Amino acid sequence: MKEDRLRALAGAMAEQGVDLALIASDLELFYYTGVYEESMERLRVLLVDRKGDWQCYANRIFRMSGSGPQAISHRDGEESAALKALAGRLDPNETIAIDSAWPSGFLLELQALAPGRKFCGAGRLLSVPMACKDKEELALMRRSSRINDQVVGELISSVGPASTETGLSQAICALYDRYGADGREGGALVAFGANCASLHPAAHKVCPQPGDCIMIDAGAPYERYQSDMTRTVFFRDVSPEMERIYHIVLEANLAGIEAVRPGRTAGEIDRVCRQVIEKSGYGACFTHRTGHGIGLHLHEEPYISAGSRTVLREGMIFSIEPGIYVPGSGGVRIEDLVAVTADGAEVLNQLPKELRVLE
Amino acid sequence: MKEDRLRALAGAMAEQGVDLALIASDLELFYYTGVYEESMERLRVLLVDRKGDWQCYANRIFRMSGSGPQAISHRDGEESAALKALAGRLDPNETIAIDSAWPSGFLLELQALAPGRKFCGAGRLLSVPMACKDKEELALMRRSSRINDQVVGELISSVGPASTETGLSQAICALYDRYGADGREGGALVAFGANCASLHPAAHKVCPQPGDCIMIDAGAPYERYQSDMTRTVFFRDVSPEMERIYHIVLEANLAGIEAVRPGRTAGEIDRVCRQVIEKSGYGACFTHRTGHGIGLHLHEEPYISAGSRTVLREGMIFSIEPGIYVPGSGGVRIEDLVAVTADGAEVLNQLPKELRVLE
Repeated sequence: MKEDRLRALAGAMAEQGVDLALIASDLELFYYTGVYEESMERLRVLLVDRKGDWQCYANRIFRMSGSGPQAISHRDGEESAALKALAGRLDPNETIAIDSAWPSGFLLELQALAPGRKFCGAGRLLSVPMACKDKEELALMRRSSRINDQVVGELISSVGPASTETGLSQAICALYDRYGADGREGGALVAFGANCASLHPAAHKVCPQPGDCIMIDAGAPYERYQSDMTRTVFFRDVSPEMERIYHIVLEANLAGIEAVRPGRTAGEIDRVCRQVIEKSGYGACFTHRTGHGIGLHLHEEPYISAGSRTVLREGMIFSIEPGIYVPGSGGVRIEDLVAVTADGAEVLNQLPKELRVLE
Repeated sequence: MKEDRLRALAGAMAEQGVDLALIASDLELFYYTGVYEESMERLRVLLVDRKGDWQCYANRIFRMSGSGPQAISHRDGEESAALKALAGRLDPNETIAIDSAWPSGFLLELQALAPGRKFCGAGRLLSVPMACKDKEELALMRRSSRINDQVVGELISSVGPASTETGLSQAICALYDRYGADGREGGALVAFGANCASLHPAAHKVCPQPGDCIMIDAGAPYERYQSDMTRTVFFRDVSPEMERIYHIVLEANLAGIEAVRPGRTAGEIDRVCRQVIEKSGYGACFTHRTGHGIGLHLHEEPYISAGSRTVLREGMIFSIEPGIYVPGSGGVRIEDLVAVTADGAEVLNQLPKELRVLE
């Protein structure tokens, strides 16, 4: 058990008037217990009270089920009995915050077993502490992005006329494995030409044509800490419009990074990036938020989206990834991860961003 | 939209007294819409009524959000407004079945927006129709397991003194890709020697020693339909105890397959396998259920576990995977997929199961 993290959670619970927190997600359980397991469809939850004391209710298939007297274990098929034991632990006057990702099926059964209890979503209760990385986590995030720089750099250098979107997106896994990241859990969205205008492009067995943009949006976890970076390069030629778009997106990326500091809101960072693109006339072609927090989750708090009032704090790590997408023609996205420092931002990615035309 | 499947669902809703079903999981949405997308943390649900009519509430980043007037779309940051629109659609007298895997965070917000509504878990409502595969699905499941036979067979043949658990578990992905399955979504648990006694073994960079059991539990989806098979072989030698264990597990596997027919319960199949192992004296070493349903999900209904009253029906597909695990020494598991036919079982895996000692 990570006692310091449990104590921090207990403090947040007291502030928010929550009496019990039910933690159920694989990565959240890893964050608090230090042990990673996959629940899949089985029941495995950690119940934490305001003192930071805990009990767990877990199928005995999990290591967590064997952690002493605080562990209440059950077998396959005995989930209802386990939920009944959990319901018996809930006081009618207590407010119980539920891990937002806990499958509704369990919650509905628990609500039926414990009628009248006050359940609320634990969204921010669990996500806010995890958004600010401690030193140990920051070191892992740096290492994860260093590996990503290396891997994406090599992948781009390997592109030739016979490369395909599918081939590149498959090849990246072995590269991650070679450099110590988890290729199995990583991956790349690879798109050529007009396919770059799609936000979730499917990879095809097509080769790049002269003038195509080549977009690689890739990452893989290292010791469970995620990386995520996008680079867009051009194959043999670049049209004047795409060159102009590239420079606008790069300007937006740099302006966003420059704007990051503690005390600013996530919405302000989104605004800075969006304004650069809007001023250029391409505002309607920047169709998504500017970025997302990242850590154990690929997407987590803080989300860098329009109007967000989330205040940036030291230790937060998120992406800055403006993009311009022109349907039928192509798209450019440039994404880096940044960590909020005491007075600005540390950029975790070091792969160059100058416009690059591959031979 | 798969109209026949929506109608079948509407029929099941009428039988169970459910007025509206909220479908939210990626694979369930694929089953009913024919389109696969990944919701990740974003909102994307399909609301189906008793006539089989539907509406969807989806972030506009998804293709599903653009399906005509029945599609109510929203942008990032507007999730609460979308849930409010959804809440407005719910009648106080209706019973609304909720996809069991829908993240609790959304459900709790919806419950707060629509107080007094009757929500229940859609567990069986959604899982029962999907458990019985139609002809199109059966053909895909057969093909998926054929590929798995080929891949696991080749992987076993490749084992040598320099093989490692990690090396084999990484190598299998490329094999799946080569034969048309999705190696990225597939994988293998590979364990040598004493590590075979672990139910969820982590792979290490260790080589097999003479006398080691080698367990490979592997599968990968083909056109999104899963495969899953376990074979245990021995490296250069096999101890008398492990040889005895192998034959007991094989007998249990064959007895379980032999017992499958429509009308029997899942619990009866578990009993048949378990009795073989209990009679041998190793009952305490068979620490898990006998099997799990499989299809679009790796684990789904019907679960072949002790006491289950689920009645087997034609078209159901599940694993029969008895095992004996001896801590500190090793373990044997033999797993095949079977499809329930009109009068018995079709075994989807054809890779031989005779005891094999690799040179």
